[in-house]
Amino acid sequence: MKFLALAAALLLAPPLAAEPTGALGLVVERANGSLLVVDQGKRASLGRITGLGDLSHASLVYSPDQRFAYVFGRDGGLTKVDILAREVVNRVMQAGNSIGGAISDDGTLVAVSNYEPGGVRVFDAGTLEMVADIPAESKTVGLVDIPGRRFVFSLWDKGETWIADFSGDEPEITRIPGMGENPYDALVTANGRTYIAGLFGADHLSALDLWEDEPQPRAILDGYAEERDKLPVYKMPHLEGWALTGEEFVLPAVGQHEVLWVDARDFTETGRTKTHGQPIFAIARPDGRQVWVNFAPPDNDTLQVIDTATKEVIHELKPGPGVLHMEFTPRGHEVWVSVRDAGKVVVYDTQTLEPLREIEADNPSGIFFTARAHRLGL
Amino acid sequence: MKFLALAAALLLAPPLAAEPTGALGLVVERANGSLLVVDQGKRASLGRITGLGDLSHASLVYSPDQRFAYVFGRDGGLTKVDILAREVVNRVMQAGNSIGGAISDDGTLVAVSNYEPGGVRVFDAGTLEMVADIPAESKTVGLVDIPGRRFVFSLWDKGETWIADFSGDEPEITRIPGMGENPYDALVTANGRTYIAGLFGADHLSALDLWEDEPQPRAILDGYAEERDKLPVYKMPHLEGWALTGEEFVLPAVGQHEVLWVDARDFTETGRTKTHGQPIFAIARPDGRQVWVNFAPPDNDTLQVIDTATKEVIHELKPGPGVLHMEFTPRGHEVWVSVRDAGKVVVYDTQTLEPLREIEADNPSGIFFTARAHRLGL
Repeated sequence: MKFLALAAALLLAPPLAAEPTGALGLVVERANGSLLVVDQGKRASLGRITGLGDLSHASLVYSPDQRFAYVFGRDGGLTKVDILAREVVNRVMQAGNSIGGAISDDGTLVAVSNYEPGGVRVFDAGTLEMVADIPAESKTVGLVDIPGRRFVFSLWDKGETWIADFSGDEPEITRIPGMGENPYDALVTANGRTYIAGLFGADHLSALDLWEDEPQPRAILDGYAEERDKLPVYKMPHLEGWALTGEEFVLPAVGQHEVLWVDARDFTETGRTKTHGQPIFAIARPDGRQVWVNFAPPDNDTLQVIDTATKEVIHELKPGPGVLHMEFTPRGHEVWVSVRDAGKVVVYDTQTLEPLREIEADNPSGIFFTARAHRLGL
Repeated sequence: MKFLALAAALLLAPPLAAEPTGALGLVVERANGSLLVVDQGKRASLGRITGLGDLSHASLVYSPDQRFAYVFGRDGGLTKVDILAREVVNRVMQAGNSIGGAISDDGTLVAVSNYEPGGVRVFDAGTLEMVADIPAESKTVGLVDIPGRRFVFSLWDKGETWIADFSGDEPEITRIPGMGENPYDALVTANGRTYIAGLFGADHLSALDLWEDEPQPRAILDGYAEERDKLPVYKMPHLEGWALTGEEFVLPAVGQHEVLWVDARDFTETGRTKTHGQPIFAIARPDGRQVWVNFAPPDNDTLQVIDTATKEVIHELKPGPGVLHMEFTPRGHEVWVSVRDAGKVVVYDTQTLEPLREIEADNPSGIFFTARAHRLGL
């Protein structure tokens, strides 16, 4: 009877099926507090994970093995989900209002950037126990991982960037003042070397070379919107969406209908491309040959595709109302686009620019493929 | 009884355990025709897949979902293995002597480069049925994938590079003559744009810009070994091991005890670093800050670590006799080193440069982590 009971238990709750994780992804369903588990190869959703709280403006990072995702909710919740089991395995309310996070290069630490009460909190990736609290007395933005169990983030209220080094027994903090007024977001290049902060209170950006022993802020694109009509800014662009095409960055211009091209080596401007509206994300296809751009309201039903070689718009798409995010397959042959108000994700072939499939989703926003587990600086 | 039999069957042959594939890898055991399945997080081997024939000089690529590997054996065998099930699922003898292969960006085609009978053969990634035979009347080398279901390879006997485009119904071949005498290997940059071939019969290399409509070969590093003592070449360096540190390539100099630094934008030489022996692989840590170099016999018991910022050797390691290959974890915090004649793989912390673990392996050579599934140009 024991045998039978065990067998019955096995039949009733079968072990998880063997499932490779390389081509999976998660789509944030912002209104419902849920995540759609998707498969790039099948171009389909496989299931849904619920109970994640307020997921407006949510983002996530992956464990190195791609089994777990750490989801940063706007409500201050840090939720760990098991993609294979399709369930929440742990959830802590770590702050009142959080803005994003990162995972250390060795996968052991998860850091969260907070508006309320400000500062950064760092958690054990296994247990979600807090291992460090870095108050900072400021809202923090632009939190990224860099090599050596380090995180970099910026202080909105103080115009500083801090490097938190967790390679030793105690965290060591390096403070870099003089970044400029009100950094509102930042990015680091894919090799973890160049950190660039966007400034709300200044008409330039600030860059740091993190390979220097004592990194010094350097103003770049000074006066980039000078002598231009300032349009009302409907939504600040996402700097993490900045594209690096190999030799150039492509930046969404704040409050302008254009993207800016910048030499990745000396930060001089190399061109501007007029766009359909105020760009939010300008994301390079992984090979850098195309840059896909979406826009702030009221132009957020449109996508434009720019050819990197000519810097010209080569195609315009109308996926539907509320185009919020794009994510390329890791080698760039397809791109997934979330269309919030149409309740769908649309998959495009990036060579033919034709739609291949629509996948139903509830108010989809961010799309995150598991290949992110293997990238620095997210 | 049916229920009991079914239950018993389940117990006797349990389904594969759920297992994420993001941090797995395969180590080629060249003498035995086997692959060791390894786990980066556990720093351990999980099992062994046998029956792959002659694996001297073998390499492999991964399916986009990271479940399958396609192994290119020197004996002309193309073997598909299931990493989760730890077994060979298909094997074809496709030629007499093959040298490497690649998988298309959409994961549907596997191409193999052959010495005997020469040319390239292309297979359906699902069934391993041949879908195209490209004779070329030459040994082929330097086969890589680029975006748009395309492959690029070079012809040893003809000094040409060919682009095979599988985006349409029939493959289209573009032939580029004038690459130089006897290309022996090649690489493409991570964005699939710049293809560089090493030449056995000339004192320069040839580069192609694949973004051009009609790519033209350009000689680079012309005369790089001029006026230098020509040492006997014990083993040709691997060009796929060329490192891109962000702004520079680092190339193993053929027949010299040095690596060459080359500006990635204009291909001018920017420096040389003396090394312990004739370099075989010069591989950049994923963040580009370090370059690890191994050497041809009789210096193949040694590894040197070069700092990219200063171009100086900062550390020397003696892992043991027969250091054949290095593979970094995707975000670069650790590196795995195969030490053939000591029958082990050694894992190092790339920050402290201390060994962390030794893993027993039978004549290990190439180490391939599953994150390769997400990279162009391998």
